Amino acid sequence: MIIVLRPATSDAEIAKIVDHLGALRLQAHVSKGAERTIVGVVGITDDKETLIAQFSQFDGVETIMPISKSFKLVSREARPDRTIVRLPNGATFGGNELAICAGPCSVESREQLQATAEAARRYGANVLRGGAFKPRTSPYAFQGLGEEGLRYLRDAADRHGLAVVTEVLDVRDVELVARYADMLQIGARNMQNFGLLRAVGELHQPVLLKRGISATIEEWLMAAEYIFVAGNHDIVLCERGIRSFDPQTRNLLDLAAVPLTAAQTHLPIVVDPSHGTGVRQLVTPLSRAAVAVGADGLIIEVHPNPAAAFSDGPQSLTLELFADLMRAIAPIAEAVGRTLPKNVIAV
Amino acid sequence: MIIVLRPATSDAEIAKIVDHLGALRLQAHVSKGAERTIVGVVGITDDKETLIAQFSQFDGVETIMPISKSFKLVSREARPDRTIVRLPNGATFGGNELAICAGPCSVESREQLQATAEAARRYGANVLRGGAFKPRTSPYAFQGLGEEGLRYLRDAADRHGLAVVTEVLDVRDVELVARYADMLQIGARNMQNFGLLRAVGELHQPVLLKRGISATIEEWLMAAEYIFVAGNHDIVLCERGIRSFDPQTRNLLDLAAVPLTAAQTHLPIVVDPSHGTGVRQLVTPLSRAAVAVGADGLIIEVHPNPAAAFSDGPQSLTLELFADLMRAIAPIAEAVGRTLPKNVIAV
Amino acid sequence: MIIVLRPATSDAEIAKIVDHLGALRLQAHVSKGAERTIVGVVGITDDKETLIAQFSQFDGVETIMPISKSFKLVSREARPDRTIVRLPNGATFGGNELAICAGPCSVESREQLQATAEAARRYGANVLRGGAFKPRTSPYAFQGLGEEGLRYLRDAADRHGLAVVTEVLDVRDVELVARYADMLQIGARNMQNFGLLRAVGELHQPVLLKRGISATIEEWLMAAEYIFVAGNHDIVLCERGIRSFDPQTRNLLDLAAVPLTAAQTHLPIVVDPSHGTGVRQLVTPLSRAAVAVGADGLIIEVHPNPAAAFSDGPQSLTLELFADLMRAIAPIAEAVGRTLPKNVIAV
Amino acid sequence: MIIVLRPATSDAEIAKIVDHLGALRLQAHVSKGAERTIVGVVGITDDKETLIAQFSQFDGVETIMPISKSFKLVSREARPDRTIVRLPNGATFGGNELAICAGPCSVESREQLQATAEAARRYGANVLRGGAFKPRTSPYAFQGLGEEGLRYLRDAADRHGLAVVTEVLDVRDVELVARYADMLQIGARNMQNFGLLRAVGELHQPVLLKRGISATIEEWLMAAEYIFVAGNHDIVLCERGIRSFDPQTRNLLDLAAVPLTAAQTHLPIVVDPSHGTGVRQLVTPLSRAAVAVGADGLIIEVHPNPAAAFSDGPQSLTLELFADLMRAIAPIAEAVGRTLPKNVIAV
Repeated sequence: MIIVLRPATSDAEIAKIVDHLGALRLQAHVSKGAERTIVGVVGITDDKETLIAQFSQFDGVETIMPISKSFKLVSREARPDRTIVRLPNGATFGGNELAICAGPCSVESREQLQATAEAARRYGANVLRGGAFKPRTSPYAFQGLGEEGLRYLRDAADRHGLAVVTEVLDVRDVELVARYADMLQIGARNMQNFGLLRAVGELHQPVLLKRGISATIEEWLMAAEYIFVAGNHDIVLCERGIRSFDPQTRNLLDLAAVPLTAAQTHLPIVVDPSHGTGVRQLVTPLSRAAVAVGADGLIIEVHPNPAAAFSDGPQSLTLELFADLMRAIAPIAEAVGRTLPKNVIAV
Repeated sequence: MIIVLRPATSDAEIAKIVDHLGALRLQAHVSKGAERTIVGVVGITDDKETLIAQFSQFDGVETIMPISKSFKLVSREARPDRTIVRLPNGATFGGNELAICAGPCSVESREQLQATAEAARRYGANVLRGGAFKPRTSPYAFQGLGEEGLRYLRDAADRHGLAVVTEVLDVRDVELVARYADMLQIGARNMQNFGLLRAVGELHQPVLLKRGISATIEEWLMAAEYIFVAGNHDIVLCERGIRSFDPQTRNLLDLAAVPLTAAQTHLPIVVDPSHGTGVRQLVTPLSRAAVAVGADGLIIEVHPNPAAAFSDGPQSLTLELFADLMRAIAPIAEAVGRTLPKNVIAV
Repeated sequence: MIIVLRPATSDAEIAKIVDHLGALRLQAHVSKGAERTIVGVVGITDDKETLIAQFSQFDGVETIMPISKSFKLVSREARPDRTIVRLPNGATFGGNELAICAGPCSVESREQLQATAEAARRYGANVLRGGAFKPRTSPYAFQGLGEEGLRYLRDAADRHGLAVVTEVLDVRDVELVARYADMLQIGARNMQNFGLLRAVGELHQPVLLKRGISATIEEWLMAAEYIFVAGNHDIVLCERGIRSFDPQTRNLLDLAAVPLTAAQTHLPIVVDPSHGTGVRQLVTPLSRAAVAVGADGLIIEVHPNPAAAFSDGPQSLTLELFADLMRAIAPIAEAVGRTLPKNVIAV
Repeated sequence: MIIVLRPATSDAEIAKIVDHLGALRLQAHVSKGAERTIVGVVGITDDKETLIAQFSQFDGVETIMPISKSFKLVSREARPDRTIVRLPNGATFGGNELAICAGPCSVESREQLQATAEAARRYGANVLRGGAFKPRTSPYAFQGLGEEGLRYLRDAADRHGLAVVTEVLDVRDVELVARYADMLQIGARNMQNFGLLRAVGELHQPVLLKRGISATIEEWLMAAEYIFVAGNHDIVLCERGIRSFDPQTRNLLDLAAVPLTAAQTHLPIVVDPSHGTGVRQLVTPLSRAAVAVGADGLIIEVHPNPAAAFSDGPQSLTLELFADLMRAIAPIAEAVGRTLPKNVIAV
């Protein structure tokens, strides 16, 4: 059950509702959005109708919705309009304009970032991606430059009018990463790191939540619910491929997940065809398909020199291939009634 | 190793080559195509270079190619141009024009077929699909109308200028099905029914080979190789989703398989988003994505009244939704430089 | 719904029941077992209770059971006792004594079979396995010796008191294989080759039905139902591993399938740890586990010289390793109250 | 490459080695074990032989091993003997005696714990399991009692001579959990939460590392390597089922992983058939199989009243069923030359 409050409801009115729920041994999850506050109610009751009748009489209550799904606040039932997530540079996820995130897997050097950011901007991206803290399967692999990397990202993005999305791996780094990033990424391995979900849920910056490597759509939306219920409503989902049996690709990109998820949640959803396939030659065709299927944006690994990349070289596009990708998706975007980021300088 | 023969090579010349291979304890797979004959050579030799030098001197030998892949004749190495498969009504797979196959899961009645064929043609399909022999998980489920169903298919297709593709389940039915169909479908469950592959390999009609429910790309191409090596070179591959863990969809449509397969074989590849998702609402978005990713065609379940369908109702489009699908893919096809079937009467 | 008939019910009485079902537009599946005949009834009825009351009055009807499962005749509800399948040499599947099938992947020569059969018998097996018709992923791989291989199998088995289990791939070979084999194997690739299931369903020899490479338990039992409903009740299920994502093993052996399946069907179930892992070193530990979990038998690939095997060498045991396996499972069998085949000459 | 140092090597000698490695641009991972210190060397060198010759002359160097695997310190190559992990109450993992961990999914109350601990001990367990911090898919599900739950666990275990294993979810809770627990569990969802792996790597208590829900054996061993390289060598692996496609079980227990992993690492490995199947009726048969396949112990969900459990009721054994399980595995343990915990009071 979700209690939707009127825009100007006071804290005292909210407190009354919460107290009364407590008296009925029901849990209240208050989430204050930009415009209105929602109280998610969780617990067991014998008589749902009486409960709805009772709370409808409280001051400030606009409407009450019984919700049967296991995820409640992120469900389409809870919000009829689709959420649009905005970054400070004007990039949007979920609106008519696509968000295009581009950049290297790992931040390696100031020069690498500047070259990538310049090209990303030139060819039409509006968000710079790059990892300063890297989740690596092996403890002996390059683990990222840390704060130095965050600085390079911020500098390169600022110089080229881009926003920054970067991964946070550890609850202890959330504040640090949030000082540099416009959007914090939760990686596939951490989709069910619930402490980290709660920690980014308390931030005011948007979160990019990648799907776990073998997560169902429902588990993914439940992970988003953890962030939402903690108070952060600016969540973007990211399909990045799931584990399967064919060794020819690193992951199996699940494009049906885009319309299937969009039918169940008001949150935007983007696609990562770089991790989703692990094969450079597949990135552009799958980007075309992602835009065609209805994705709200793309996140693409781009590197000035993939052969020398510290990580994920085989799936990274060169700057030129990224330009090709942007040319390839332009007519598809138009065909589905979407636009590319307006910052395009030259294609 | 593949020995490519000149167009006019005589049977006597071919026999000499085969005999000499036999003397060296190598197996020869002679496959006569429309234009030229290819001899696939299989076996172990110590000295490949001497072998190539030796056979280059035989009459009729145009060129000899060493091939490292486990699938040989269907590999891109064996044929630099992409194969175009043509049906009698002019439908093509693998050319610039897409092939659009539409029709019910099961053939149920003459009226159902006529209504579907009329609409399929009206909205732009050029091939009529429908099962007269149905592979059903349960022995108690509807098993198809058999020859009666084939007759309905042929009649409805002929009346509306469509070609017929229909599944053959059993080697004993190959001749019967081939009398009515323009293209024989090998279903996912039979992808490694090697006797059936060999039987359709001896036909002169094109074959639509669906990917097995958990087949790797390599296993799929090897199944195609069985058909090709038996002499039938008109093979179209069909991605139809693989088994995965999320209960929300019937299968997981693997669109990366399209460009990944196209990079390895000269055979055309189409996509079946109906079985690939099992969810009606996903069929049109995934059709857009399939065209965008580079598929050579689509195969769509369409039924005048899905709620009353004998099988696969939940994934079947109504005639109106099929019209919507065709409208949705038109601009995508244009965006990737492809055309829809020219027979479109009205959209 | 299942109508169980009394032992001596005449054909005329059965015909009356079937006719009356037809008049009600219900399908009747008559399956005559060794002791009694069962009529499986399929179709839709508004009033199940009236139907049961009606048919209870027919001559010969002992009892009528409504069955909710999609598989009916092979379900535990249809038969409270577990089925015991017997081979001519006295080997049993499903009784207290385990069945131990051993032999090469492919039949290669008379000498290979004689050496294997001699050792199989010596170390305690009671069934000789071996493929004369081989389902090979590649058309260029060894396809089996055909009838010559069947002869070698029969001769070697007869000389050593073993029964023969061998795969049939093609409906056109069913009669031929049945002339030589005591038990016909349906391989994983053919689990849903429904024509083949029906064909072996009309035989009087037992069938070993392997689980498809990504078949659910329900789909597997439905495949068994196809055989059962065709009249052959002597079916043994074989778990042989399913497809998964870790490249270290060929398949993922699903031992939970043994008790899970046994809870749903009266049919016996054996385990194939050779295909189930694809790794020689894992065959004996997984055999111990299979016996411990409750399997009714094992099917093991054994070869006098695995390094020279035409197929599946890496997963084949040498004759000595097979002796070790038998020694290893003996105390496990005892621990779970089972016995090894009594024909053991020396361990 | 691994440099194994003599027992009494001084810090100054170690520093010299590390410095010289640094000069060669190689990374040194010093891990001090109870008896000796190992220096894992990571990086790229042209001439491995010269390098080995060079470092062999340093003081304190006992031997140098080139290791090709991606996981080094946990590999069998690095330590020929199997690791035995000991808990304060004498429970061992990896020795001849099995470790039997039993207890509820969630710690719910003092009484629940006392009843469970009493029965666990009575029937032969030597470790008490139970979650005080629960990783729950839904934010609305019971999240555990926290420190209160840890206290209940400690008290109940102490009163009955058991050790405590419990999960830690968050790096910020590692110290707290370590104050109460004898062994810290890293759950499947956190197998690649690298900050948490490093944090428990700095502890002196043993760690139970569960396999991720779709982790390969190699990824799992790499996760163990993170803990090992941080200095904690007391790691026990736990197979708990992987994600698969059949809805009849919660996970697919991969028993082949036990011998397959044991062939690659010196670390002990236990099996969790409760999460591994999710079905109460399967827990005992799969426990028998786990012991038969060679597992070093079991971890079993036991609850005095599963029907009222806050979590995982359907897979929890009653106290009586746990007694049955212990009776069932006793003869299997004997058959494979293992013993049950010696603390058994009465079975």
